Amino acid sequence: MAVRVICAPDKLRGSLDAAEAAAALAAGVRAAGGRPVEHPLADGGEGSRGTVQEARGGTVLDVESVDAFGRPWRAKTGRLDDGTAIVEAAEAVGWGALAEGERDPMRASSAGLAAPLLAAAGDARRVVVFLGGTATMDGGTGLLAALGAEILDGEGRRLSGSGADLARVHSIDLAPARERLKGVELLVAADVVSPLYGPNGAARVFGPQKGADPDMVEVLDDGLRRLAPLLGVGSGRGDGADAAPGGGAAGGLGAALLALGARMKPGAVLIRELTRFDELLVDADLCLTAEGKVDASTDAGKTIRAVVDACAEAQVPCVVLGGTLTADAQRLYERGATAVLSVSPGPRDLDTALREAGSDLTATAYAVCRMMRRNRPGSG
Amino acid sequence: MAVRVICAPDKLRGSLDAAEAAAALAAGVRAAGGRPVEHPLADGGEGSRGTVQEARGGTVLDVESVDAFGRPWRAKTGRLDDGTAIVEAAEAVGWGALAEGERDPMRASSAGLAAPLLAAAGDARRVVVFLGGTATMDGGTGLLAALGAEILDGEGRRLSGSGADLARVHSIDLAPARERLKGVELLVAADVVSPLYGPNGAARVFGPQKGADPDMVEVLDDGLRRLAPLLGVGSGRGDGADAAPGGGAAGGLGAALLALGARMKPGAVLIRELTRFDELLVDADLCLTAEGKVDASTDAGKTIRAVVDACAEAQVPCVVLGGTLTADAQRLYERGATAVLSVSPGPRDLDTALREAGSDLTATAYAVCRMMRRNRPGSG
Repeated sequence: MAVRVICAPDKLRGSLDAAEAAAALAAGVRAAGGRPVEHPLADGGEGSRGTVQEARGGTVLDVESVDAFGRPWRAKTGRLDDGTAIVEAAEAVGWGALAEGERDPMRASSAGLAAPLLAAAGDARRVVVFLGGTATMDGGTGLLAALGAEILDGEGRRLSGSGADLARVHSIDLAPARERLKGVELLVAADVVSPLYGPNGAARVFGPQKGADPDMVEVLDDGLRRLAPLLGVGSGRGDGADAAPGGGAAGGLGAALLALGARMKPGAVLIRELTRFDELLVDADLCLTAEGKVDASTDAGKTIRAVVDACAEAQVPCVVLGGTLTADAQRLYERGATAVLSVSPGPRDLDTALREAGSDLTATAYAVCRMMRRNRPGSG
Repeated sequence: MAVRVICAPDKLRGSLDAAEAAAALAAGVRAAGGRPVEHPLADGGEGSRGTVQEARGGTVLDVESVDAFGRPWRAKTGRLDDGTAIVEAAEAVGWGALAEGERDPMRASSAGLAAPLLAAAGDARRVVVFLGGTATMDGGTGLLAALGAEILDGEGRRLSGSGADLARVHSIDLAPARERLKGVELLVAADVVSPLYGPNGAARVFGPQKGADPDMVEVLDDGLRRLAPLLGVGSGRGDGADAAPGGGAAGGLGAALLALGARMKPGAVLIRELTRFDELLVDADLCLTAEGKVDASTDAGKTIRAVVDACAEAQVPCVVLGGTLTADAQRLYERGATAVLSVSPGPRDLDTALREAGSDLTATAYAVCRMMRRNRPGSG
């Protein structure tokens, strides 16, 4: 009987999306006489809703909304057949709606997430929100205001929520927003563990890539500190060690959703659950997973770590392939990985490596399958 | 019981010698709980005598002789306990005796190989000569003359043999040289298949690295063509397709030894036999081999190919590791290799790769051993 091999990679950034990577692995498995099962994964950030629905099917609803700068935009709400609805923040207030280079974290707002979230909450018993990949840094104030929360400045004027508004927030009444989501189980998938503020917080870590210059980073971090106690996700003082991990995800959307009563899970863990990855392992002989760079963040809870954990629990051999392995990649052995290998055929430049990733994955998957198959009985 | 893993690499040029590479592989095997057997190999060129004696022991005799430019030099003759003697041309008329940059293929002579060869023939029933790595391009005329062969120019004057002499050779009487080696089985290990002359011949392929400028290459190729029919190793005409393969090894020493009645084998095959590599495979669970660059020449008969062939015959899984894999590396699968993998942890520059080769071999050997061990019963 042919060996059943689960091909469950994350994307290889700059090179292959997860589905392409899974197909490349599967080609190698097939060439070695194995029976591949393609199961692309994600870490809870951009592309996660699509990843889940590729595995689980369901329906997708287009929802009239606005982008991060308030312009009309169609967001999406996914529905699975078990009554779970899925919203991806990046599909609402992410970069996809914006022009190349359009970045303004002071003006950007998460308000556009409200419509798909309410559409999801309408008839679902559980709503999953994938964070990550947004153009916003408003601490989720745009979303909260759009859901009806009363956010006031020091003179009692309502704020609609944006990066710039943070400096003026004086009080927040969340009750109207909570009322609209009443009875819904909110589950939030964070792709990072950053708190709302501080040296590892949203503004300092993600502000620059969202267009914040050093001055803006200071202003935004101050604003997020001000917001934290109002949302009940941290004191707003110190280095953020007492603030909720993941509160800083998606420019602080994490904190706003926590304030609305959401439970938060690492994105990769939620993807593992939602795609029913563990069920695939029951009959599996081997699992191949891959990502572009296997490093310390991998071990800290990205997709590959979730796969390694699942395989260790199911006692299925798991081989991790990386475009690049750093020294930290070796830590995955302690988690139970069978082997950690690079797909690189030798020293060369990064551009070539990115271009050749597909055939390299195939060649390495082929080699691995032959090794796993060719073991002699009684040799271990 | 721990898995018994034969670690049988060639050198990784510019980085590790074969013994260092074997030790690096063994460290990975040990870390994975396996039982390594270090068995460094060679391709029949430089270092081959030492490689054989590391595996087989025996004695080494220092022999008074001369270097490629006629200066006093101690060459070596090895003796194994089964009566086989070993001479390595590179230890007699190679680069080790010369100053940095000292290259003169017109003047260099292989005469210095005569003394260690005669010392070997003295009491051995079989003499193995490893070619490769010499500073000479004299078609072996220096050796032949030193052994007593009568090499005459057009006016009946004796020539002592050198690159420059080739243009004047008119006749050769090999009988005195044959007489001195009478009763000895001569076995020659070539590390290349080049014929004595022609586009793939000694002068064109190896002349430049031995110091020949384009004009010298022409003169030397003409001289070697002239020599071929006198030695009975080719017509001297055409592209060398009718000349003996390997005749061009070691600046034509191959042809001279063939003319003395030697049998020629690929160096890697002879090393496989002399080091008794196949005996190691009887109880082996796995063989790891490695070289710097796995390419078309690997498949054409270098060390790794000999290892793959031996493992295929013995039905022992064989995993080939390379610093770099070219597309041709995949051909080793057709020869029966279980897997062909690079040890590179990702895209990077060659200098780093050469520097890190040891730890990369160890890490990859570790991963491979875990994969070979962790297979589930019944999964193949």
